[in-house]
This record gives sequence, C-alpha cells and structure tokens, in this order.
Amino acid sequence: MKDIDRAIKFAAMSIKNDLLLRAAKGEKTSRTPVWLMRQAGRILPEYRAVREKLSGFKELVETPELAAEVTIQPVDILDVDAAIIFSDILVIPDAMGLPYEMIEKKGPHFPNTVASPGDIRKLKVADPSELSYVYDAIKLTKAELDNSVPLIGFAGAPWTIFSYMVEGGGSKTFSKARGMLYTNPADSHELLDMITSTTIGYLKGQIAAGADLIQLFDSWAGVLPPDHYSEFSLRYISRICDSIKEVPITVFAKGAWFALAEMETLSCRTVGLDWNMNPADAKKILPGKTLQGNLDPCVLYGSNEQIEEETRKMLAQFEGHPHIANLGHGVYPDTDPEKVKCFIRSVREFSSR
Amino acid sequence: MKDIDRAIKFAAMSIKNDLLLRAAKGEKTSRTPVWLMRQAGRILPEYRAVREKLSGFKELVETPELAAEVTIQPVDILDVDAAIIFSDILVIPDAMGLPYEMIEKKGPHFPNTVASPGDIRKLKVADPSELSYVYDAIKLTKAELDNSVPLIGFAGAPWTIFSYMVEGGGSKTFSKARGMLYTNPADSHELLDMITSTTIGYLKGQIAAGADLIQLFDSWAGVLPPDHYSEFSLRYISRICDSIKEVPITVFAKGAWFALAEMETLSCRTVGLDWNMNPADAKKILPGKTLQGNLDPCVLYGSNEQIEEETRKMLAQFEGHPHIANLGHGVYPDTDPEKVKCFIRSVREFSSR
Repeated sequence: MKDIDRAIKFAAMSIKNDLLLRAAKGEKTSRTPVWLMRQAGRILPEYRAVREKLSGFKELVETPELAAEVTIQPVDILDVDAAIIFSDILVIPDAMGLPYEMIEKKGPHFPNTVASPGDIRKLKVADPSELSYVYDAIKLTKAELDNSVPLIGFAGAPWTIFSYMVEGGGSKTFSKARGMLYTNPADSHELLDMITSTTIGYLKGQIAAGADLIQLFDSWAGVLPPDHYSEFSLRYISRICDSIKEVPITVFAKGAWFALAEMETLSCRTVGLDWNMNPADAKKILPGKTLQGNLDPCVLYGSNEQIEEETRKMLAQFEGHPHIANLGHGVYPDTDPEKVKCFIRSVREFSSR
Repeated sequence: MKDIDRAIKFAAMSIKNDLLLRAAKGEKTSRTPVWLMRQAGRILPEYRAVREKLSGFKELVETPELAAEVTIQPVDILDVDAAIIFSDILVIPDAMGLPYEMIEKKGPHFPNTVASPGDIRKLKVADPSELSYVYDAIKLTKAELDNSVPLIGFAGAPWTIFSYMVEGGGSKTFSKARGMLYTNPADSHELLDMITSTTIGYLKGQIAAGADLIQLFDSWAGVLPPDHYSEFSLRYISRICDSIKEVPITVFAKGAWFALAEMETLSCRTVGLDWNMNPADAKKILPGKTLQGNLDPCVLYGSNEQIEEETRKMLAQFEGHPHIANLGHGVYPDTDPEKVKCFIRSVREFSSR
C-alpha cells in the first residue's frame, strides 16, 4: 500500500499534459487548458449506456470500476485537459448519517432532514474511510489515465451541503436553510463545523488516492446576503483551503460576485467564475488567483460559428491573466457532445501562443 | 366614464399618506415609507379564507371584487404605506394567446409553450381591453382605499415573461429561454417586442384605472450574462419606462447586480435591490434613483429583537439617499404576519426624523 502511494505521488509529478496544474500555479502555458464542469455524465451516450444497466445513480457513484469508467470517457471522447472524478457532493451528508436518494429528472432528495438541534446530535463527523469507494475510484482512474492528464477531486462547500441537509433537496429560495442562520446561528455553526471536518478528511483521502487538484463547489453561494456568506460559508471554505497544502485548490462559488474581493484572501490557487461575472472586473479584484470559466453554457446550443466567436471573445477577456477555460456552470444535459468538442477545439486553437 | 377618470386623477393628487410617491420622486420625507412585495397573499389567514372558497388562483385574479378585497387586506392588517394590486405577471401571455395554469404548491404551468417561430406567429399583441378585469379591480380598490395610501400597479419585465413562455414554468437553469437568445435572436426580439407592446398598453390601462405607481418585476434577470441582459432585457424595460410618463416607475431586476450602472440611465424613478446587493455600492452607482429594498426576507424568521436590529442596520445603510423600505424579495409564504408587523413598525419607528 505504501509503495502504491509512493508510486502515485511520483506519477503525479510526471503528468504528460500538465497544462491545468501549471495554469493553476499561475505559470504561463503554451495554450489555455480546458475542461468542463459535469463533463462526465449525461451529455455522453457512452455514459447513458453505462447508467442504463444500473439500478440507480448511487450504484454508479459507489462502484469504483464504473465511476472510473465514466470519469475517463470525456478524456477519450472530448479531448479535455483534465478528468474530474465521477461522484456527487452529497456523499458527505450520506457518510455523516443523512442518506440521500437521487430521483430521476428531479434531483436529490433526503428522506430525513436537519430540522432541529436534535437532528444535528444524531449526525457524526464521518471517518474518512467510510468514503473509500471514492478513493478506490480515484486509484483506478489514475491507473487507467496513466499520467495522460491530471485528475480533479472535489467536494461541496460546507454551506451548500448544509443547504441540502436542511432543505432536503433543491429549493427556489433556500429559505429554510437561510432562515436557520438567523433563528439558530450556534447550531448552524456546529453543523457547518461537522461538515467541514468531514470534508477535510475526505479531501485528504482523495489526495492520498491520487487527486491532483481539488475543486470546491459552492453551488448555493448566491442565495446569501454578503455578511452571512462571509460568516457561514467563506469561513469554512477558508478552513478547508488552509488544511489542504498538498495540491492546488479551486473555489467555485456560483453567484457570489459580492465575495470576490474576500476570495482573494483565501489560500486557494484558482477561483471559478460563473457566466454573469465580468472577467475584466475579476482580473482586477483577484490579481493573485488563476481564474476559471466562464462561457455561458447556453452558447453550446448555438452554431459552431457562434461557439467559435463566443469562445474567442471569452479567451480575449481573460488575456494576460492565468486562465483555465471552462463553462460558467456545469454543462447542461441536453447539450450535443459535438458542440462541446467545438468549444474545446476553439480553446485549443485560439489560445495557442 | 370620463368623469370617473377625472375624479380618480384628482383623487390621486390628494392621497393622505403620500410618503411612497414623494420618496419615489426623490423628495425628503418625515420617515421612510414601507411595503412588502407579495404582501397581498399567502402570508395572511384572511387571504387564505378568501382563496379557499374559490376553484383556483386564476378565479381570484379574474374576479375584480375579490382581487380588490385581498389587495386591501395588508393595508388594514399590516399598516403598510402602499397597496399593490393583487394579480399575476402571467396575465400578459394569457392575453397574448398563451394561457397559464397555477398549480397549487408548484407554481405556474403553460400547457403550450413557445418552442418554434411558428408558435410566435400564433400569438398577438393583446388589445389592452382584454385585461379589463385588472383595471376593474384597480378601480374598486381605489374607491375602497379612499385615498388613504397609493396603489401600485405592476407587470413582469419582458425578459421574465418571455422566459415563462419558452420554459412553460419555472426552471433551475432557464436554459431553453437563454438558449433561444443564441439560436434564434431575431425571433426572440420579435417575441420580446410583442410582449413589450402588450405590456405598455396594459400599464396605461392600469394607470387610467388609478394606479399611482408602476413596478416592473424582472424576476429572472440574474440568469443572463451582462451583454444579453442589456440586449434582451434592459432594452425593452427602457422602452416601457420611456412610454410611461404618467406615474413614477420602479424597476426590480432580481440578481442583475451587473446591470446597476446601466439602470441609472433608465427613465424610471426607483430601482429595487435584492438582499445580495450592497446599499453603499448601489448609492454610488445609482445617485439619481430612489432605492427600494432590501432586507433579507429570512430575517422575518428571527426574533423581534433580530428583526429590529437588522431593520435598523438596513435603514442606516440607505441613510442620506431616497429610500423605500421593503424586503429584497417577495415575503415568503410561511412568514408569521406578526413578524411582518414588527418589520413595518421598526421601519416607522427607526426612520422617523
């Protein structure tokens, strides 16, 4: 086991296409690296073929061989510069004692939610070993990738995980989760603290298994007022960033335009931008960070000519600043893979120096 | 009829509590006026008592006597400084030939949607008289209000109406509506133009019936990238603002923090802010506009002491700038009316000069 770990670490140091890792460190690269959030998943017929044979989404997440298979699909098919491990941010509440279900075409659902302090007492900081199925998927993926491109590990930011645990699923307003921050700030902090501790152990497990970079997804960042975002979200993101020194970290806080200045102070290397955010402003506000993003995913519904033009515009906006090309949101499930390929080709072609 | 119209116009000039109208004009007022978005509706048991007797939501919207009754309820019960006519922004597509249904606990649903240019050809710019049930509700409300407080009329901004017509209801991503702006910009403009023309006629009908101020709700402003927001939303909001000279206009574009500078150029009097937006920044960006908002609606889940403290903080942030106190979003349906009263009392008390 120790030997395997050492081998993985050595391997990580000699990845053939290391554009992503070098851009994340702020180094100049021969062209802009590119990958897509949600690249492993429903857009690919090859993914749906794997998925159809299974009882449900969780079986795929919890079966390392299959998770590795769908992780590698977009590297082979789309020619992206990184793989991202196929998993779900909700494995964290699951491991803490609050299981989720994934309901087809509707999204996640928690049969039990956190509605009272008593519900928090029933949860635990999960032992990282409970998520070994993810580490196994990472190890298998690393072996199969054979150092061609880096592998991204990930977790949800604590506020986003907290929201799901309190709301029991998605929500138009997230008013239960947001309300709890006013009605019960002490218990909110206790739960956020438990999520954070679990997440740090989990990410260290992912890194030990071979993850070359970590991305934190704060999907519901945009629903909080700025002072609450600072107190109930960034505080915990900051703790995670400070605890992970092994690999570069990317923080993607969707909708948190108001927190960009504070994000410059995080010990992460890269900040992700959604498609609302203006790259020119972000470059000024975040001089010390690599920026990731931020093409509107709806551009991929357009013609190849439109995709080329919008990608060119996007690359020009980030010019002169360390940049990882991506969409400003996860790729939408009804996107034609050929259009994704056009986006990736455009980044490769137009960013070559 | 002419006499009634003249009487209404004279009446509008002599409203007893005219704080809202004076604040909207940028005048100094003895205290900050206050009302709540969605104040007429599900938070009040008196509303639910009216609603329960009916076959559905649309019957309430389309029955002037009942719409007037629930419009006046919050004025009597909550002691707000304005009434807002009880209606729905979706009466516009309905009048254009695309009917909606309101599904209990789920929201609006359109049995038919706009999916192709042919679907646009089937629609029409509605004759304003088709919405006479709203004007009748306004006339009845004005008569019953007896000049105690102003009555706010409203409409959805064209982009938000367009989104519903294309998506057929709410959406997590609005990717169909956003996608159409890339795949079919000419038809998108045609539909937006038809919505805009219908809306202008409709608002003029509301004003003729007695509305003292108009608010435009751009609920889905925040899903567009800044250049699309300017081209496909603000352009049409601007046309509406330029067409309505009779009464002051308020524009509330939820999530459109990136467009505040451009909104300063609109010929509206007031700009609404959601709870994400920083009043200090907004004051600088919008020196010529009255600002409306922006308490986080979740504050009303807190204790009276918290509501008082957060309201005091909010008022202090707007200090020195014309301000209409409100929440940063429609009041959430599970809010205790006593907490709403506490918010309103707090504004009255803490803003008195």
